[in-house]
Amino acid sequence: GGGFRASEHQHSRYNPLRDEWVLVSAHRVKRPWQGQLEKPPPEDVPRWDPKNPLCPGATRANGEVNPHYEGTFVFPNDFPALQPDAPEPDDSGHPLFRAAAARGVCKVMCFHPHSDLTLPLMSLLEIRAVIDAWAELEAELGASYPWVQIFENKGAMMGCSNPHPHCQVWASSFLPNEARLEERTQRQHHSQHGMPMLLEYAEQEAQRKERLVVENEDWLVVVPYWATWPFQTLLLPRRHVLRLQDLCDSERDSLASIMRRLLIKYDNLFQVSFPYSMGWHGAPTGPYLQEDCGHWQLHAHYYPPLLRSATVRKFMVGYEMLAQAQRDLTPEQAAERLRALPEVHYKLRHQ
Amino acid sequence: GGGFRASEHQHSRYNPLRDEWVLVSAHRVKRPWQGQLEKPPPEDVPRWDPKNPLCPGATRANGEVNPHYEGTFVFPNDFPALQPDAPEPDDSGHPLFRAAAARGVCKVMCFHPHSDLTLPLMSLLEIRAVIDAWAELEAELGASYPWVQIFENKGAMMGCSNPHPHCQVWASSFLPNEARLEERTQRQHHSQHGMPMLLEYAEQEAQRKERLVVENEDWLVVVPYWATWPFQTLLLPRRHVLRLQDLCDSERDSLASIMRRLLIKYDNLFQVSFPYSMGWHGAPTGPYLQEDCGHWQLHAHYYPPLLRSATVRKFMVGYEMLAQAQRDLTPEQAAERLRALPEVHYKLRHQ
Ligand SMILES: O=P(O)(O)O[C@H]1O[C@H](CO)[C@@H](O)[C@H](O)[C@H]1O
Ligand SMILES: O=P(O)(O)O[C@H]1O[C@H](CO)[C@@H](O)[C@H](O)[C@H]1O
Repeated sequence: GGGFRASEHQHSRYNPLRDEWVLVSAHRVKRPWQGQLEKPPPEDVPRWDPKNPLCPGATRANGEVNPHYEGTFVFPNDFPALQPDAPEPDDSGHPLFRAAAARGVCKVMCFHPHSDLTLPLMSLLEIRAVIDAWAELEAELGASYPWVQIFENKGAMMGCSNPHPHCQVWASSFLPNEARLEERTQRQHHSQHGMPMLLEYAEQEAQRKERLVVENEDWLVVVPYWATWPFQTLLLPRRHVLRLQDLCDSERDSLASIMRRLLIKYDNLFQVSFPYSMGWHGAPTGPYLQEDCGHWQLHAHYYPPLLRSATVRKFMVGYEMLAQAQRDLTPEQAAERLRALPEVHYKLRHQ
Repeated sequence: GGGFRASEHQHSRYNPLRDEWVLVSAHRVKRPWQGQLEKPPPEDVPRWDPKNPLCPGATRANGEVNPHYEGTFVFPNDFPALQPDAPEPDDSGHPLFRAAAARGVCKVMCFHPHSDLTLPLMSLLEIRAVIDAWAELEAELGASYPWVQIFENKGAMMGCSNPHPHCQVWASSFLPNEARLEERTQRQHHSQHGMPMLLEYAEQEAQRKERLVVENEDWLVVVPYWATWPFQTLLLPRRHVLRLQDLCDSERDSLASIMRRLLIKYDNLFQVSFPYSMGWHGAPTGPYLQEDCGHWQLHAHYYPPLLRSATVRKFMVGYEMLAQAQRDLTPEQAAERLRALPEVHYKLRHQ
């Protein structure tokens, strides 16, 4: 490479977990933006609203009344995309028209009784309770279902229709696309290199340091080398861990701590409750509990849409949908900006 | 299948072009929506605005003045994600940190001199001129570049930052992800079944009819069996065609006609200028022009985000990003709704 500089010269990077490429054109962030501005999230969410179906004591769509819960609270999604019993689709008799049965359950988990909180504003103990509840649900639903997808849509920009802090858990009778993909790439890496891909990757990033955002004794967060969203991150354990339920007590505490540090930085970046979709990927469950899943490594993906400010997002549209994801700053630049931010939440700085 | 009904019973469908699945949970459209409302597009776009860099006679970011063009107008993107010369990235020396050179050009094509028009409001002759300009650009850039991605982002919701009717053309020195994927799946289908996948698919859909939206002697538009976006469509030729430049005169006319009919229906669906990202996929070019690309079939994808109304979109977020795309109405229901709409634009109905 004659004088190659990633921040100046467009190039492609390979994502080994999804077997695809991202186009990095960092010089492009200079273009002016005259497109859509997003509405910042409301600042005046009431702590308790009896008409909000996620609040303690509120009545849900199905007529049930929520308990006056004080920690986390799990209940069935009233409009589930997956239900436990659905008949087998008929055979179309043609390979281009293939359908398959899809069964499962959808749950909602409130993180906290207060609607005006988000994870980065919660205490370490409260976040730890969320982690325990995740691990429990994964073990419970994973006893029979092969995939338990825990995910949080945060912010209206990410399709979240309720400001109350919550996530969802969708368990399915099948491995969804992303799980199939990561199963294939991790298995292949393991058989070729004799080491779980993401364990090797975490070791490399811990040494290289330029994409690190936060780290502690058990965990690290990086803007992955192949990130597509501007401030996308990957949360990785340092030791080989298959599933959330395998985390020991101290690892759960250190997870609460690193999540909180990451999410405070996220909020501090544009001084706004930072929107994202995040979710956990671990080894498959159900029948896979009996199989060797040594190629898997537990991890969480954070996919935040904002690019330049609280109101200017990255659009993954035409070229991205039809050809390939494209990013406007390098992962190293994104990591550097996140690293430089304080670890005290901007809302609490003057208290 | 004992009593299976696609509109009532969730199931998965296979997308053979992308080798992935979509979860169809049509019962879910019943849930109330309290989330983000989109701003409808402005109704008062001036026909000519000398400050709009896409208008005839306007000055662009680089200081150049546009000609007083009367048909289509092509110029280089002033903030290109791909440039013809970029040095080769350095070798990281590790398989998890792989970068590759990315070179190319980015062009913008205005469809018409008037900012207050969109394709469905243009005449057949004007649309035909756009098709000719696409074919010309594909041939010109495709002479050296292996992939020429023509795409249109329509509407602010799809990241479009300028209301003037236009599309973009990004040519690259590499096959982007989507091209690689469709190359692989079409090649495999062809070698297994002896017929181009999408030619066989079009024949099937022409017979089955339930997903047809519009058709004519040369073309058909379907909501594909595996559609992810609520009103996603696939535009297919009836004969085997590799690239836009291979279309004969009468096929270009009939393409202008079917595009216009589709886009009028789209606008009529929610009585709004319908946002979408669309793009053309054909056989690769450059060095591939010398190779056998018989497994390829030319097609256009339309990816529109709206779900329920002009202001309620489908969010492809948490579950979709982390696990699998999910849709809230069946492709057959979407096709039926589009079929039932008039072929006169709602804005022109009372003239
Ligand atoms: O080039 P534009 O129209 O300003 O930009 C738009 O389309 C590009 C190509 O899909 C995207 O990368 C941008 O995020 C989007 O805002
Ligand atoms: O279930 P919610 O939060 O109402 O819905 C949100 O998340 C779902 C899962 O990612 C998506 O399918 C919906 O489009 C989105 O609006």
